[in-house]
Amino acid sequence: MELLKNKIRKDAKITENRIIRVDNFLNHQLDITLFNEIGKEFKRRFSGKEVTKIVTIETSGIAIASITAQYFNNVPVVFAKKHAGMNMNRDVYEAKVYSYTKDQEYSIKVSKEFLSPNDKILIIDDFLASGSALLGLVNLVSQSSAEISGVGIVIEKSFQGGRKLVEDSGLQIESLAIIDSLKDGQVFFK
Amino acid sequence: MELLKNKIRKDAKITENRIIRVDNFLNHQLDITLFNEIGKEFKRRFSGKEVTKIVTIETSGIAIASITAQYFNNVPVVFAKKHAGMNMNRDVYEAKVYSYTKDQEYSIKVSKEFLSPNDKILIIDDFLASGSALLGLVNLVSQSSAEISGVGIVIEKSFQGGRKLVEDSGLQIESLAIIDSLKDGQVFFK
Repeated sequence: MELLKNKIRKDAKITENRIIRVDNFLNHQLDITLFNEIGKEFKRRFSGKEVTKIVTIETSGIAIASITAQYFNNVPVVFAKKHAGMNMNRDVYEAKVYSYTKDQEYSIKVSKEFLSPNDKILIIDDFLASGSALLGLVNLVSQSSAEISGVGIVIEKSFQGGRKLVEDSGLQIESLAIIDSLKDGQVFFK
Repeated sequence: MELLKNKIRKDAKITENRIIRVDNFLNHQLDITLFNEIGKEFKRRFSGKEVTKIVTIETSGIAIASITAQYFNNVPVVFAKKHAGMNMNRDVYEAKVYSYTKDQEYSIKVSKEFLSPNDKILIIDDFLASGSALLGLVNLVSQSSAEISGVGIVIEKSFQGGRKLVEDSGLQIESLAIIDSLKDGQVFFK
C-alpha cells in the first residue's frame, strides 16, 4: 500500500536499526484519513471472505479495527484486554503473550460472551514482529471455535520472523507494508 | 440521545446500584453503528466550535474518538497513555488521575509534539463519574496552552459529582446519556 509506505518513509522514527516508532500517525496520534484508506485496503484484500466480527488487541489495534469495521458492514469489534479491570467478567478466554520489548509474559483476555462458534473473525493488528501477540489472538479465537477468516496487519517487520508462525496455521495473512530491514535511519520495504 | 439510552436500558449490567457495565457495546465489544450515531450527535452539539484535534484517554475512549473524528473533517485523534511503553518519547505532558475503582493514583501522558498552542481541542471520553480522569485530561491539554473547544461524554453518572469539577472551569460539557441513579438493576436517566 503505497500511501502507507510513503507515510512510514516520511514520518517513522528508527532507533537501533530494530525499533520503528510511528507515534505520529498510528500509535499515539491517529491519522483518521489514513485509517480509512487502510480499512478500504483490508476490505479489498479480504473481499471474498465472510466476516461477522473483527478482533484486535488493546491499545493500538482498536482505532484501526473500528475504522476498518465500517468497510465490513459495521460488524462489531472486540478487543482483547491486556489490562483487565476489576469490573471485567470472569468468564474469559485467555492466552499468554511474550513481550520482547518488555521481556515479560502477560495475559490477554476476551469475555466468552463475545465470541461464538458461528463467528467468522477477521483479526486486525497494527504490528507483526515476533508474532507472539498475533499467535495469542489466534489462540484466543480458536478457543471459542469461531472460524478465522483472515489476519490483517498494518506494518510487518519481516526480519523478526512472526509471519511463519501464523502461516503455519494455514491462515491468510495480509500486511499492508512489509519492512525487510531498518538501516541508518532508513526503512527498506520488501 | 434516545438511541443510546435505549441501548443502555436494554444491554447495561448494573451491580451494587453503583457500577454500570456496558461491555457489550461500549467497553469491550464495540457497536460501530452506534458509534457513528454518537459521532454525529457530538458534531451537532459542538457545531459552532472549531476543532483541530480530538483528545481522549486509553482504552475505551479511543474507538469513540476515532469514529467521531470523521464528523469533524477527519481531524487527528491523540490519546493520553496510561501504560506508556519503553519506546515512548520522554518529552511528555503528564497529569495524575485517581481511580476510585482501583483505589490508586496513576499517571496519564501525552507527547508534547502532539499538542500545540494553536490547537482547538475537543475532549472525548466514554464515562464521566468522579471527574478525575477528565480533570487529568483538561490539565494535560492546558499545559500545552491549546484551547479546549468542549468536552463530549458518552455516559455521565451524575450522582458521582464529576460534572461540577469540569463546569467550574467554564467548559462546555455535553453528555449523551445522563444517569441520575441505578436501582434494583434499573437505570434512571435525568
